[in-house]
Amino acid sequence: MTTAIDHRLDETFAALANPTRRAILARLAEGAATVNELAEPFEMTLPAISKHIKVLERAGLVTRAHHAQYRPCALDAAPLREVSSWAEQYRPVWEARFDRMETYLRTLDGDERDERR
Amino acid sequence: MTTAIDHRLDETFAALANPTRRAILARLAEGAATVNELAEPFEMTLPAISKHIKVLERAGLVTRAHHAQYRPCALDAAPLREVSSWAEQYRPVWEARFDRMETYLRTLDGDERDERR
Repeated sequence: MTTAIDHRLDETFAALANPTRRAILARLAEGAATVNELAEPFEMTLPAISKHIKVLERAGLVTRAHHAQYRPCALDAAPLREVSSWAEQYRPVWEARFDRMETYLRTLDGDERDERR
Repeated sequence: MTTAIDHRLDETFAALANPTRRAILARLAEGAATVNELAEPFEMTLPAISKHIKVLERAGLVTRAHHAQYRPCALDAAPLREVSSWAEQYRPVWEARFDRMETYLRTLDGDERDERR
């Protein structure tokens, strides 16, 4: 059974699985920018950057002004809040893992002390 | 410039962009399971499930025992901690967004009160 949130997470995760797209989001976190401005720091053609922006738009991560002449892009962080909530479910698992590792490291430490005696 | 963490995030996000793979992780959060046990709740063939598990293994989200006869799968939540940290960078952006929405809703509320007078 696939729910609406499942579908949204599919699109969001797929959009985030690319370093250029993540860099575009980091840039937009500082403020809106035109496609030309976004293309500057990357060694990419405008059509290649536009393609990435379209993927981000479909995932709801980027919105574009409809009326302004240069149609600046803006970040919509709402899907990232969903990503964070989704990942945070697993916090007890990764915290248990690091607790176990700490216990293990303390055991090693104890063994070393024993050896030094 | 693509860093090691960038490459890991690419693999993690790509692995997470699928509802079956996310459901497998949810099941494994309750404890280790064999491929047969993982296949049960899904209407999928064993080869299809195995393929999903391989994607999760490559992303470091699932580890498998090498010696045990049934090679049970276990969750490794470390990459999910990276996902959470990555998304949390944007918390100030989504919080600002909801603050703006709250201010806007309060404005609407004020207008309504004015109209009722």
